[in-house]
Amino acid sequence: MVNFESDYIAGAHPKLMQRLLETNLEPGAGYGDDRWSRSAERKILDACGCPDGSVFFLSGGTQVNVVAISALLRPWEGVVTAETGHIHVHEAGGLEAIGCKLLLLPERDGKLTAAAVRELTETVLADENREHVVWPGVVYVTNPTEWGSLYTRRELEDIAAVCRQYGLRLYLDGARLAYGLASRAADLDLKTIAALCDAFYIGGTKCGALCGEALVFPHGAPTHFANYTKKRLAMLAKGRVFGVQFDALFTDGLYWEIGRHGIEAAERLKEILRRHGLPTFRETPTNQQFVVLENEALARLREQVAVSYWSRADETHTVVRLATSWSTTEADLETLDRALGG
Amino acid sequence: MVNFESDYIAGAHPKLMQRLLETNLEPGAGYGDDRWSRSAERKILDACGCPDGSVFFLSGGTQVNVVAISALLRPWEGVVTAETGHIHVHEAGGLEAIGCKLLLLPERDGKLTAAAVRELTETVLADENREHVVWPGVVYVTNPTEWGSLYTRRELEDIAAVCRQYGLRLYLDGARLAYGLASRAADLDLKTIAALCDAFYIGGTKCGALCGEALVFPHGAPTHFANYTKKRLAMLAKGRVFGVQFDALFTDGLYWEIGRHGIEAAERLKEILRRHGLPTFRETPTNQQFVVLENEALARLREQVAVSYWSRADETHTVVRLATSWSTTEADLETLDRALGG
Amino acid sequence: MVNFESDYIAGAHPKLMQRLLETNLEPGAGYGDDRWSRSAERKILDACGCPDGSVFFLSGGTQVNVVAISALLRPWEGVVTAETGHIHVHEAGGLEAIGCKLLLLPERDGKLTAAAVRELTETVLADENREHVVWPGVVYVTNPTEWGSLYTRRELEDIAAVCRQYGLRLYLDGARLAYGLASRAADLDLKTIAALCDAFYIGGTKCGALCGEALVFPHGAPTHFANYTKKRLAMLAKGRVFGVQFDALFTDGLYWEIGRHGIEAAERLKEILRRHGLPTFRETPTNQQFVVLENEALARLREQVAVSYWSRADETHTVVRLATSWSTTEADLETLDRALGG
Amino acid sequence: MVNFESDYIAGAHPKLMQRLLETNLEPGAGYGDDRWSRSAERKILDACGCPDGSVFFLSGGTQVNVVAISALLRPWEGVVTAETGHIHVHEAGGLEAIGCKLLLLPERDGKLTAAAVRELTETVLADENREHVVWPGVVYVTNPTEWGSLYTRRELEDIAAVCRQYGLRLYLDGARLAYGLASRAADLDLKTIAALCDAFYIGGTKCGALCGEALVFPHGAPTHFANYTKKRLAMLAKGRVFGVQFDALFTDGLYWEIGRHGIEAAERLKEILRRHGLPTFRETPTNQQFVVLENEALARLREQVAVSYWSRADETHTVVRLATSWSTTEADLETLDRALGG
Repeated sequence: MVNFESDYIAGAHPKLMQRLLETNLEPGAGYGDDRWSRSAERKILDACGCPDGSVFFLSGGTQVNVVAISALLRPWEGVVTAETGHIHVHEAGGLEAIGCKLLLLPERDGKLTAAAVRELTETVLADENREHVVWPGVVYVTNPTEWGSLYTRRELEDIAAVCRQYGLRLYLDGARLAYGLASRAADLDLKTIAALCDAFYIGGTKCGALCGEALVFPHGAPTHFANYTKKRLAMLAKGRVFGVQFDALFTDGLYWEIGRHGIEAAERLKEILRRHGLPTFRETPTNQQFVVLENEALARLREQVAVSYWSRADETHTVVRLATSWSTTEADLETLDRALGG
Repeated sequence: MVNFESDYIAGAHPKLMQRLLETNLEPGAGYGDDRWSRSAERKILDACGCPDGSVFFLSGGTQVNVVAISALLRPWEGVVTAETGHIHVHEAGGLEAIGCKLLLLPERDGKLTAAAVRELTETVLADENREHVVWPGVVYVTNPTEWGSLYTRRELEDIAAVCRQYGLRLYLDGARLAYGLASRAADLDLKTIAALCDAFYIGGTKCGALCGEALVFPHGAPTHFANYTKKRLAMLAKGRVFGVQFDALFTDGLYWEIGRHGIEAAERLKEILRRHGLPTFRETPTNQQFVVLENEALARLREQVAVSYWSRADETHTVVRLATSWSTTEADLETLDRALGG
Repeated sequence: MVNFESDYIAGAHPKLMQRLLETNLEPGAGYGDDRWSRSAERKILDACGCPDGSVFFLSGGTQVNVVAISALLRPWEGVVTAETGHIHVHEAGGLEAIGCKLLLLPERDGKLTAAAVRELTETVLADENREHVVWPGVVYVTNPTEWGSLYTRRELEDIAAVCRQYGLRLYLDGARLAYGLASRAADLDLKTIAALCDAFYIGGTKCGALCGEALVFPHGAPTHFANYTKKRLAMLAKGRVFGVQFDALFTDGLYWEIGRHGIEAAERLKEILRRHGLPTFRETPTNQQFVVLENEALARLREQVAVSYWSRADETHTVVRLATSWSTTEADLETLDRALGG
Repeated sequence: MVNFESDYIAGAHPKLMQRLLETNLEPGAGYGDDRWSRSAERKILDACGCPDGSVFFLSGGTQVNVVAISALLRPWEGVVTAETGHIHVHEAGGLEAIGCKLLLLPERDGKLTAAAVRELTETVLADENREHVVWPGVVYVTNPTEWGSLYTRRELEDIAAVCRQYGLRLYLDGARLAYGLASRAADLDLKTIAALCDAFYIGGTKCGALCGEALVFPHGAPTHFANYTKKRLAMLAKGRVFGVQFDALFTDGLYWEIGRHGIEAAERLKEILRRHGLPTFRETPTNQQFVVLENEALARLREQVAVSYWSRADETHTVVRLATSWSTTEADLETLDRALGG
């Protein structure tokens, strides 16, 4: 059985495991005050070109999204997101659970457009009943998006310009950022993201870590943010678990190497899918590929290959996802090739 | 200056004021345990044909919607609503503010359809990642809707049938129910609503009361619901203010008389609008009429007639609402007629 | 049956009812933008000596406490209160329900002391683990307190000084403020309260209104506070109901007249209780008196006089409250006298 | 510099690291559906003697406390805790942040008593205003407590009996349970705890794991609890990180071995402290020892030994904590001995 379900099916990249082992018995301060976390913060801020920023490490994507976005919102504001946004469709209502409303906009190739954000904002500002309405406060984008697409530099600049004009904050969800940075279609780098966003996170869980995401506030964090993460149940006693791993990810370009490995595997995957007449449902330049399968064909495929349910296409078809990652091997791809060829 | 902004521009129907005066100095128990509230409850349950139900009185529509719906939800569930639903567009995120997610469906003439509710529910049940998804729990309908339209008996029965099939609860927002019951197009009566819904409220504020809505649980209230209303800041010390008014509203058919008055005024209003070449934006059989006006024409009209901003139509046009009510007079309509004729 | 249960057993003071009647059919803007609310605001700010402040009208005490305090807190802060504070013991967890922690301090005669607030604050600031702790943010005092006692000017100044020193905000709950201002022991007036507090409310419900409390921000309200009240379910469509009443309460000194009436009745009540050998449990200079009764004696008393359960004294005794108000009559007091004399 | 700050200063027990390495590249399902988590669940339920129970793995103590307790509460209920309870003093208001009120009781040696729980419950049930009050719903105990003390079997049985009588749920925080089970004073074992509690957790973070706590519902979990953990940001993508570690902890008695090691080190620590005239502040039979130091002496000690601030004793003294764990070595103790002897 070969597994293409997700990019979090394995443990950690061997170099991270090695560092965890090497540092295992050294004593370190709790709650993120350890030396590895501080070293990782410096390396990340350096890579992002924002030496005066702050970095916090949290466990996973949903957690960092909810904690960071809610800290950026004021009481009369909500979060603007594409209707395909992870915070809307796959976080079990985590933002609403702590009081935040989502303001949905149509997606285009999984992305928000600056024009739609502008129109929503101007509509609220023009509304004579705006005391009864939730105002836009934070704009949420994902890169790569939930559908594997990428923002261009120009698209993100345009959204950031609307945010600046109207006093909105821009937040980027980088759960799979390594694959976005390494994509052949990549038009954004870390420094540009840091320059345009008020906060963003660099994904660890899906890019080689056991767990952990690095939340970056390039221009400074909300006051008492550490206290706020504790209140939101997101502070780990052994913050070193994140620090050691991110220190390794940002040493000698490992984060980019992981991204490239996943992207090369994805290109091979696309080629195999095409060859077997399973064209991808949406063209994606990153590590997730989406295929529509007839339900019985899906059941047969799953006897040999683990894939992820994505959505119901219609009564007899299902959209499934196949993902590659740093851990995808040539043998995995060959097994898939044979399984499809059967 | 004549005022068609809303159905809450005046105080209370004179008969309610008279009863408030008559009972003013009689001592009564606090927090809804007074004799008038209990009498009003009995009359309402009788009118609804559900003698074993419970009635709670709350201050206003947003408050009753949020308190009642949140009490009907389980922790993994959200509220299904048309994207035009009041809880989504005009309650400042009140439901999200206490942790509840909205699940939006397209509106058709301001209404939800049973088919759309069914499809949403089946999609969630079929979702292999449904631990990451908010499940439908309560279905929210408004009657009359935010756009003045009415559910037919058949439409509500179909939605109720989907709810029963999947274990969802059906909640009806009756902020303007008096006008819905009195409409010439009315196909629903109180007993049918009580038979089909798990909870609904009979609007007071917009139908003749100073304030107050009667929340009906026809088959029994959630456990300790009174305590829950206190926790949600919705319990009034002098609950008698609601009790006395609703007792009067449900004496000698006053609630229906109020509805008929508003509807007759609305028919006259429609006729005047038509005569002046201002056809209503959406055809509505109830007391709210919507008109699209060019912005300068709107500014001129507002010099003589107060109307409500509804939404931005485009850069040069605005949708406005004119509403009638129990307090609309023939003189009001004649003034409007002259203002338009100018 | 005579009723001393509370100060909210009757409707509204006759002068308020008269004004509600007189204005009943005049059209007015919704949601507090009506002329009466604006007039009441001006009169209140004038009485408080803070012309640049803001006033908002909300329905009841619990509602205004929770909405105002939560708007004054920052995410890492909680509310300091005496352990007898209404927000702790009788609001069904309303503050916690929207995310706020209470920081309890011992009461002395129902009051907080400046020294206790200082010590709590310094303890938190000295705590090396203060990221794991809720910081004091708002200090909550009640005047008259839940036990009927009054802060002296000096006591409130001392608390305010601690607040200024440490950046805390001071909030005063004036549910029964009319009786506090009119007490023979009164040492605080409205202008002093306005000068010392960041926010406070002037109680209406217990001081002559049908419903409604006037929340005063003497130095300006939190940004978009009206939107926030909507989100917290506390905005009334017919805000005029509050405006008309408070406009009357602050015309020709009616609010003070109401207070004096209640206090005179309370002095008569104390004298009656003393004469019948029922000394008050705690000496109080305001309109609430507390008596400990043996449970069977209480049951007999209740056959003729309605009184309020306050707390369990021990297995065979109960603390009960008798309250006077603007509506207490000489006949009420005589009936009580006879009932006790039996 | 030797470190006695806490029991979470090192990484994971070497046997856990070894298992993480061995399984690192094996693919596994996400979100806790992996084989290691299921195996760990079976071993834990077996050790607890409740084969029909359920186990969920969460990241840390605050997270599991808040998620589990809130899921056990009904809307009108709060959590009963000793005033020294971790949920009250060191979780940054996490429970209140999602709407739950704490009901504080005095501590006796860091513990709740059955009598105090009973009295609180009976007081609420007798309260005629109980619609305005938060009812007790869950009783929270910690074992070992925050002050290192242990419940006897009889004490826990008595509390459980009160819970059963009044329909309360009993929850036990076992952050340091390994040290509690291994203490020479231990009177409780896992099977007894499972028989008496509705939910409890077996601490991993402080007992040898990198991160992770095992939440046990011995009689079955709340409906859709997995969905609920996602909503509360507590679901880890690579749940295997917990599964692999707890599988190792519950293989060949490792969890007990870890506990014994920590306790033996604590006995040595107590002996050293005594020898140097630093008697423990509170006598504790577990792995945390509390000492009061004059502030300058503390500063000097901290030049060689890392200890934890616990609380301010008075203006010139501080209570500090020294903790041992599975990772404390004989060399650590000897260094401490020399540092104190200086």
